[in-house]
Amino acid sequence: MTVASSGLILKEMLNHSDLDTAFRALSDASRRAIVERLVRGPATVGTLAEPLAMSLPAVLQHLAVLEAAGIVTSHKVGRVRTCTLVPDALVGPTAWLQHQRTPAERRLDRLGEHLVDAPQEQP
Amino acid sequence: MTVASSGLILKEMLNHSDLDTAFRALSDASRRAIVERLVRGPATVGTLAEPLAMSLPAVLQHLAVLEAAGIVTSHKVGRVRTCTLVPDALVGPTAWLQHQRTPAERRLDRLGEHLVDAPQEQP
Repeated sequence: MTVASSGLILKEMLNHSDLDTAFRALSDASRRAIVERLVRGPATVGTLAEPLAMSLPAVLQHLAVLEAAGIVTSHKVGRVRTCTLVPDALVGPTAWLQHQRTPAERRLDRLGEHLVDAPQEQP
Repeated sequence: MTVASSGLILKEMLNHSDLDTAFRALSDASRRAIVERLVRGPATVGTLAEPLAMSLPAVLQHLAVLEAAGIVTSHKVGRVRTCTLVPDALVGPTAWLQHQRTPAERRLDRLGEHLVDAPQEQP
């Protein structure tokens, strides 16, 4: 991949209306809980609904918002609908937020990662 | 800072209602444009309004949303109101999004940073 084409892809990811929809989809704790569960792998609607204190129609409404935002996809086999996180669906919002960090914050990020990744043998 | 206290701080940053408000505030392209400008430093309402194709009351309404979300603060001297980005205001949403990345994605992130940071003398 050339630098030019990766720049185009980043520009595409930062598309305004896509970011609007993605950030709005993430502005609800129940929808974020669904995303947190799906990061670990696909799950049925029943599994996703279990920890949420709400009716099944309410869960389906949240899933519809996440599907419309291109964050979640689902397919039905028989009576069971299984939901999956769309790969790279959160790359746009993440990239936008990372771009808003000041140079000083970026340096601190790298220091933090270095400390976390430092091998045990170093004192 | 101990690991326990930094864990508490992270938990505080990921407070549900704060995240709701922050993500909702960022779900509008004009408000994101204001944040993008303020990352470079404080600016007057007039400066912020200039590139936005909307009335001053509309700009003030967007600023009110960003202030309510704790992302922007402002102070008035005479007739001029100056806006500033609240330090660390975007850390909560950024941290939440970074937590949702799969292990494979995290490895790719580190590879990308390595490639960007690699010194010039390496072939």
